[in-house]
This record gives sequence, structure tokens and C-alpha cells, in this order.
Amino acid sequence: MSILDVIKKRKSVRKFKQEQITDEEMQLIVEAGQLAPSGHNSQTSHFVVIQKQEVLNELRELVKAEFAKMEFDETTYSSIKTSITLSKKGKYNFMYNAPILIVATNLRGYGNAMADCSLALGNMMLMATELNIGTCWINQLKWLTDNETVKKYLEKIGISADEMVCGCLSVGYSDQPNLAPVIRKGNVTDFIK
Amino acid sequence: MSILDVIKKRKSVRKFKQEQITDEEMQLIVEAGQLAPSGHNSQTSHFVVIQKQEVLNELRELVKAEFAKMEFDETTYSSIKTSITLSKKGKYNFMYNAPILIVATNLRGYGNAMADCSLALGNMMLMATELNIGTCWINQLKWLTDNETVKKYLEKIGISADEMVCGCLSVGYSDQPNLAPVIRKGNVTDFIK
Repeated sequence: MSILDVIKKRKSVRKFKQEQITDEEMQLIVEAGQLAPSGHNSQTSHFVVIQKQEVLNELRELVKAEFAKMEFDETTYSSIKTSITLSKKGKYNFMYNAPILIVATNLRGYGNAMADCSLALGNMMLMATELNIGTCWINQLKWLTDNETVKKYLEKIGISADEMVCGCLSVGYSDQPNLAPVIRKGNVTDFIK
Repeated sequence: MSILDVIKKRKSVRKFKQEQITDEEMQLIVEAGQLAPSGHNSQTSHFVVIQKQEVLNELRELVKAEFAKMEFDETTYSSIKTSITLSKKGKYNFMYNAPILIVATNLRGYGNAMADCSLALGNMMLMATELNIGTCWINQLKWLTDNETVKKYLEKIGISADEMVCGCLSVGYSDQPNLAPVIRKGNVTDFIK
């Protein structure tokens, strides 16, 4: 498969089978992320691969509880509004019940943090696609990265207070029918020749 | 080539041949970027592909002039220090003399701006690698995205004031010997199973 085929095949998956992917598959996905470029090749991104159901459950409940405490107004980003509204109703699973959550963190205040983590997560998504494994980008822990309760929990699983969450991936075998491809009108692109 | 092979092959190129890549190659690179995921599939990233030597020259001189006006102290990020120091000496080409600069912008203040642009630029780097075309991530226009003189120039080439530069790529055929691969110790990765 050419790289463009993999790029075209990749689609966000939001319904996952509960079985774990193999260790070999997990290693390939992680390796793809580790090989991503980083500013000055500093490789300060930190990946935490959560495959333990107990931790996933605790995290899910914690995120729901913290969003449920929040309020929004007309300036709030639409997806954060949805997170708050659903959490207040008690029904919110920010990671779509995936058997794996990969959390990508970097140093707080570091200028390349978002770019470096995004490039790593991008590589992981493509590697997973080639292996027929579904992924979905998850922003909720990034939105809550300054939340004290969330920070305390993340410390317990090895993410220190001087790290910020830049993004996450839900990962697992897809349990989603093969829907029609997402239509991409394409970002505006100008050529100056 | 498997996607992991492309990921392993990708290396930052900082010395370029002056000839243009073909239009077909350029289109494939742009397409790879346009197909990257974006928050809510909103596709607000905007790509400006500069292949006109006159514009590249003006931009290079402008960036040098603006960095030359800046000062730094011990808290300044090391690469910004280098940009300022070299610019004050009058010898600074922030884009390594590449025949193409791709500028990726997004809406100022938009929470997914950096992630969306980074994922698009990441896809472009991998597509270019498969085509044996060199790339290098360029941060300087991002660092200067609030600079009024730079903003004014960017407006002239179609980047409006409500857009911010998230990242750029230098693109072209490599004129760099095949150096040994960059050693990646690998980002710290923890598994919670």
C-alpha cells in the first residue's frame, strides 16, 4: 500500500471491539510514534499506553465528573459544550469505550509540545491504519490538563505535574460498519508560482 | 514500502537542489496534507505553497531583518537565540534555500489549530519521503506570527490577519549526502497493562 492509500484509508473509529490488539501491533504503533520528528530531535514527548481496564474506567469516570462540574456559555467551543452537557446527564465516555488509550504529553510551556506530540500521534494513526486497527484523536484530557483533580490522577499513572497532555488516541479493532468515506472538501490551498 | 519504512526513511533535509519538483509531485504532497484528520473535520487549515523565487527572497530578507531587531536573554528558546544571533550578523536563511516553502496557517485562537496543521504537515513529509523529496519543518514564521511587519507581508500573499502561522515546510530535492540516520533514543513510553 502506498502511503497515500494509507492516508486515504484512515478514518476516525468511534466503536471498538473489546479485545486487545497484539503486543506486536502495539509495539509497531508505538515505534511509528517514536520515530516522528521533533524540534531539535529533543524527543521530549512522553507516551503512556493504558490498556488496563481498571485505569480506563477510573479515568472515564473522573473526566465525566470533572466536566459535569463545569459550565459553558456562548463562547465555549462546541465540543467542550457537548462534553459538559453529556457529563451532566451522567452519560459520557470520552474515549468511546476503546480498550486502549494512548496519552501523549510534553513539557508544559514548551513551544514545540503540540507539534511534536501531534506528529507522533499522526504516525501512530497511520501505522494503526495499515494494521487494520482503528484510532480516534481524543482532546478531552488536553482540555482538562490544568484541572487539579485530573492532574493528581495522571500523576498516579506516571504523568508528572510539569507535563501537559497534548492529545490522546483511542485505539482498538474497529467494530464500526464500513461507512462511506468522510467527504473532505479539502483545505484551501493557494499556489504562488 | 510499508508505512514504517517511510517513517524510518524520513529525515530532515537542510540542503536543497534549486530545481522545482514536478507539479504532479507537488499535488500529491498537498493532497496528503488535505487528507489529514482535523477536529470535527472542519478543515480550517490553510496551505500556501510558495514556489516563486521573488517571494521566497523577500520573505527570507524580511525574516532576517525582523530577527535582527530582536534581543534575547537566558530564558529565550535556544533556536530563537540562534535565529537572532545569525540575523544580526546578516547571514540567516531560515528556509535553507529550498525552492519551495509551504506555509500552514489556521484561525488565530482556535484550539485545534496546531494539531490540525501538524497532522497535515506530517502527512506531507511522509508523502514527500516516498517520492524521494526532502523536507524540513520550519518554525520561524510561527515565532513571528504576531510580528506586525511579517503579518503585513503575509497579507499580501493571501494570509489574512485572523490567521496564524502554525508551521512551515521547506521542500525540494535533497542535495545532502546520505548521512547516517539520526539516532532516536526514543521518547519515554510507559505501558499500563
